[in-house]
Amino acid sequence: MTQRTHLGKRRKVIDGLEKITGRAMYTADLSIAGMVHARPVLSLYPHAHIQGIDARAALAVPGVIAVLTGHDLNHGRIAHSRPSMLLALDEVMFAGQPVAVVVASSEAAAADAAALLDIDYATLESVDDAAQAMQDTLHVWPQGVPSAGASMASLHGGEAGPGGGTSVSNIDERRVFERGDVSAALQNAHVVIDRSYGTSWIHQSYLEPHAVVAEPGRRPGQVTVYTSTQGQYTVRSEVATALGLRERDVRVEPMTVGGGFGAKYGILDALVAAVALHLRRPVRLVLSRSEDMLTTMPAPGTAIRVRLGADAEGRITALDVHAMIENGVFRFGHAGIIATVIGGMYRCEHVRIETLEVLTNRAPTGAYRAPGVPQALFALESSVDELARVLGHDPLELRYLNAVEAGDLTGTGHPWPGIGLKACLERAREHPIWRKRQERPHEGVGLAIGGWPGAFSPAGAVCRVEPDGTVRLHLGSVDISGVHSSMVLIAADTLGVDPDVVEIVQGTTDSGPFAPGSGGSQVTISVGGAVLDASTQVRDQLLDLAAHEFEAHRDDVELVGGSARVKGVPGPGLTIGKLAQLGQRLAGGPGPVVAEGRAAIKAGAPGFTVQLMRVHVDPDTGLVTPLEAVSVQDVGFALNPMLVEGQMQGARPRASVSACTRECTSRAAL
Amino acid sequence: MTQRTHLGKRRKVIDGLEKITGRAMYTADLSIAGMVHARPVLSLYPHAHIQGIDARAALAVPGVIAVLTGHDLNHGRIAHSRPSMLLALDEVMFAGQPVAVVVASSEAAAADAAALLDIDYATLESVDDAAQAMQDTLHVWPQGVPSAGASMASLHGGEAGPGGGTSVSNIDERRVFERGDVSAALQNAHVVIDRSYGTSWIHQSYLEPHAVVAEPGRRPGQVTVYTSTQGQYTVRSEVATALGLRERDVRVEPMTVGGGFGAKYGILDALVAAVALHLRRPVRLVLSRSEDMLTTMPAPGTAIRVRLGADAEGRITALDVHAMIENGVFRFGHAGIIATVIGGMYRCEHVRIETLEVLTNRAPTGAYRAPGVPQALFALESSVDELARVLGHDPLELRYLNAVEAGDLTGTGHPWPGIGLKACLERAREHPIWRKRQERPHEGVGLAIGGWPGAFSPAGAVCRVEPDGTVRLHLGSVDISGVHSSMVLIAADTLGVDPDVVEIVQGTTDSGPFAPGSGGSQVTISVGGAVLDASTQVRDQLLDLAAHEFEAHRDDVELVGGSARVKGVPGPGLTIGKLAQLGQRLAGGPGPVVAEGRAAIKAGAPGFTVQLMRVHVDPDTGLVTPLEAVSVQDVGFALNPMLVEGQMQGARPRASVSACTRECTSRAAL
Repeated sequence: MTQRTHLGKRRKVIDGLEKITGRAMYTADLSIAGMVHARPVLSLYPHAHIQGIDARAALAVPGVIAVLTGHDLNHGRIAHSRPSMLLALDEVMFAGQPVAVVVASSEAAAADAAALLDIDYATLESVDDAAQAMQDTLHVWPQGVPSAGASMASLHGGEAGPGGGTSVSNIDERRVFERGDVSAALQNAHVVIDRSYGTSWIHQSYLEPHAVVAEPGRRPGQVTVYTSTQGQYTVRSEVATALGLRERDVRVEPMTVGGGFGAKYGILDALVAAVALHLRRPVRLVLSRSEDMLTTMPAPGTAIRVRLGADAEGRITALDVHAMIENGVFRFGHAGIIATVIGGMYRCEHVRIETLEVLTNRAPTGAYRAPGVPQALFALESSVDELARVLGHDPLELRYLNAVEAGDLTGTGHPWPGIGLKACLERAREHPIWRKRQERPHEGVGLAIGGWPGAFSPAGAVCRVEPDGTVRLHLGSVDISGVHSSMVLIAADTLGVDPDVVEIVQGTTDSGPFAPGSGGSQVTISVGGAVLDASTQVRDQLLDLAAHEFEAHRDDVELVGGSARVKGVPGPGLTIGKLAQLGQRLAGGPGPVVAEGRAAIKAGAPGFTVQLMRVHVDPDTGLVTPLEAVSVQDVGFALNPMLVEGQMQGARPRASVSACTRECTSRAAL
Repeated sequence: MTQRTHLGKRRKVIDGLEKITGRAMYTADLSIAGMVHARPVLSLYPHAHIQGIDARAALAVPGVIAVLTGHDLNHGRIAHSRPSMLLALDEVMFAGQPVAVVVASSEAAAADAAALLDIDYATLESVDDAAQAMQDTLHVWPQGVPSAGASMASLHGGEAGPGGGTSVSNIDERRVFERGDVSAALQNAHVVIDRSYGTSWIHQSYLEPHAVVAEPGRRPGQVTVYTSTQGQYTVRSEVATALGLRERDVRVEPMTVGGGFGAKYGILDALVAAVALHLRRPVRLVLSRSEDMLTTMPAPGTAIRVRLGADAEGRITALDVHAMIENGVFRFGHAGIIATVIGGMYRCEHVRIETLEVLTNRAPTGAYRAPGVPQALFALESSVDELARVLGHDPLELRYLNAVEAGDLTGTGHPWPGIGLKACLERAREHPIWRKRQERPHEGVGLAIGGWPGAFSPAGAVCRVEPDGTVRLHLGSVDISGVHSSMVLIAADTLGVDPDVVEIVQGTTDSGPFAPGSGGSQVTISVGGAVLDASTQVRDQLLDLAAHEFEAHRDDVELVGGSARVKGVPGPGLTIGKLAQLGQRLAGGPGPVVAEGRAAIKAGAPGFTVQLMRVHVDPDTGLVTPLEAVSVQDVGFALNPMLVEGQMQGARPRASVSACTRECTSRAAL
């Protein structure tokens, strides 16, 4: 058990200063000798045949090095996802699809030339929205929906279509998650709420647009990719697969990320790497804001019908959900998450969730914070409010009556572990905003709950003590939300040092350590154990070295304030820097002070929340103005409460944060 | 015990292809965006006062950015060694000392401007050679010989001189290593040989001159140094100390090294780092060949008197050595090594070795292959030849009679462990060159022995299995002689994979792992154990994962040909890449497949050698022409015999390698 000198206390993020002073190195800040600049040319049409590309005017712009099309960069693989796309061959499938790349010695020359590229499109019929897609008369993929691993070779492979799939339907996947007998339960319900909800597509709108610099390696087929990403290992796989390279030959160096929200997993990396390898030069591509809106992976639109049955006491007896997700041009797979959450917030015996994932000629969609969950819970929670209204029940108490607890099932039928939804509701119930919700004229308080099962993964971490007393923590995770600041505290408390002497070394895919992508709320819980493991091993090594020097038993030595000393013996002791020097010198000793820690936890940590929003409604116009928001979260033990608060505040839509009170229940996490 | 499928077999070096194809990245090949070029201006005089520097003409050269002098880069520390020198302040102490640095946007502009720099020297009396130095009338350091750690502050510190030392004598250090009663033994000897030998200064003359690129880090006081070095951690310490930086803020990235031979431990790195930090730009400095000859650290000249007493049977009864080493302007400390070796080749009861290290106004000297040993053994072995001649004994048998064995003492009084000097002599005795040495007219065969105690150090190493089946070995050592090629074999045999899937990741000082500098013949023996430790841990992890998948006991699983399989069960098994994927995925499993191995061996591995050289002597002119050379070495178990042979051949002066036969005795090393 690690002491808690710094863990659990408020502490600023470690990279705050370099971010606010502009010293943080974003991909767009990177300049490599000989680097050239690429500008993408994006399709203007949702579906068209490319009849020809006239590059003469573009190539005449001074400084232009190359105009590359899909035929220049054809790697023989069929794109089945946005990251696996390079450039269109002869057909574009969505507006915003990259058709060509113009490369020049300056950003300005590339932009000028890109504007002069003359692409002759012959427009084709397109599937423009989900309603049209559902008719399934015009198919987005008439030769088969492409799937992962498909290559041009499968064109000759027999029954599978050229995309590798056999299905041509726009309704790419239909799944049903069912328990009990929903039809009967609805029939027997005291009251049934039946409502349909639509959500629009939404772009993640991170501050920093996608940016990639790729540099050819020393050997043919080797490439280094500097990129704004949430997951360097994902990018490595995507680039290696798309370009037919060995993973070992793709080196990904994650840069500072200016916001990800689920969207930064290698959308442009294969393309930029292909250009760099083709030209044998370092290439930079930084999207403009409008390009980023057009060619990346926004969150899908949904149409969700919820039928909710309840008894007279308000107990939910039946939940019937039909969710249609418009994924755009490629598969993504939101169904599992939506079902898990929409069917897992309230205890209910009879549940049926049907999901349809639909393809259209629109940009491929992707993850946007807990992908699918905001859409699903918007529908569910709106229905629950309706239920409370119809029954005349208090909306918080109705939720409390039905809220899931440990052992209750998720929408996909798995039991929840110990969770804090009810605890969150109890806190919200006591909050002044809630208690006084009916006291002010023309004001009201909205309420909704949310939850997330929490991802998890095995991970590694290296802890190393340098001869100058610095503790280096090597991490393979990307810090997009302050997680590394918490890792510092784990190491500091384990080693009895000030957090300021702990320095993060950002790993690359070559250096390791391995860590999961920074998504799914998994980094702290997945990597934290590896940090604890590594630090604990290092602590033991330091104690061994100190015991040797002090001629004492290891159990009689302790690490305090950056030094080892014999318990009960005053004096300065031996600094950990001196011990590290000894480790690098002592023949027959434990060796250099360093350890690679590993962890592979068996379950994630689900998190729940209750959101309260006080609004004013103008009785004349109906204008709703948010006044105050409260976020109650089940966060477990907050390794650094300041970071948790920052996350809670940052996670709210800007307009609604007029005041945000942190309310957090405690569960042991470390 | 690791199997030996690849260990002990001949295999090409792993970096041979990239070196012969020009793909290896030397420091001078590096180009960083915004990088500027520096040219040093070196003192023309061994001792002079700098009365003024007129930079106007230099600054007028187009492209020149700055002319920097010692006052621009004064960090308040007094240089006590070549690596700690930046630029001269007001006085130069040796011809070749850097006085100024001219920085320009191109190498050519910097060179042109450097030639125009007008430095007004007032020459001062200088101590030009060891004989003059020994008179000790004119002192090289009249205010005290500078020592490590001295700063300008010590100018005001009381009794110590400004250099921090109290001695002003040119005879910087006199040491005596003594056992028995040499005077009496010489008096009682049957025969006494008394000869004096002089050796000249010699430059290491690596193919690649010193080259450094330094780049300011993101935060003030942070710097990255790309350098041709044998020891990145040494460079880090030198730079941090010289510039008053924290070690954690100095990042050293070792580049491919074009020869070191003891000379590449950071001679220019602090200077180039200081220029980069001063100008806030990446700076490259690549010495020309003549600058390199003038301003680096050659091997010292020596004057060694040997008195050798022996009885009538040729047993050496007394050895009296007086060795004078001319270190140039700074301390180096060759005495201990010279004494260890010169007094440690032959069993002898009465030994006295006196060493004088002398300072002159010449370039500071440094290590050049087993520093001091060639000089010392030249004297010793020439004397032993004289002894054989005087006694009429066979020179090989005389040596065999006296050669040290396990338990005999080194010149500093430490017992040798099991060693192979006699075994080498036995092999040489049988060699045709030796047996037929008197058969050809005007030809003769020279003979000498040599030995080296062998350095050693704690070290770390990381072994990591990637999902594509690549085994990555992360090493902190610098490969200047093929050592990493042997590490690959240790990992390959431990994991049952082909050596081609094992890839070296060169560590930096930030990434680790820690390893000693590549000098003193210590890397293979010091780092090899860490590689074995890391690989063995990884093997266990792979077996655990395979046992889980096969639902078998780990003892029943084996790793063969890159896959795990249940013993005795045919079939393809599971590749280690698949197991690595599983490790990154399996909840509750062992975690990512990776381990940091450590080792801290308790002793080095001394190596001995016998050299035979057949020469032709022209009876008219006396011209000696080398015809054939034989090198017999006590190398232990050769991890890769091809590499050992390459080392043996490469270690010989080029002229003498007309034919080289590898003869190696076997001792277990792994």
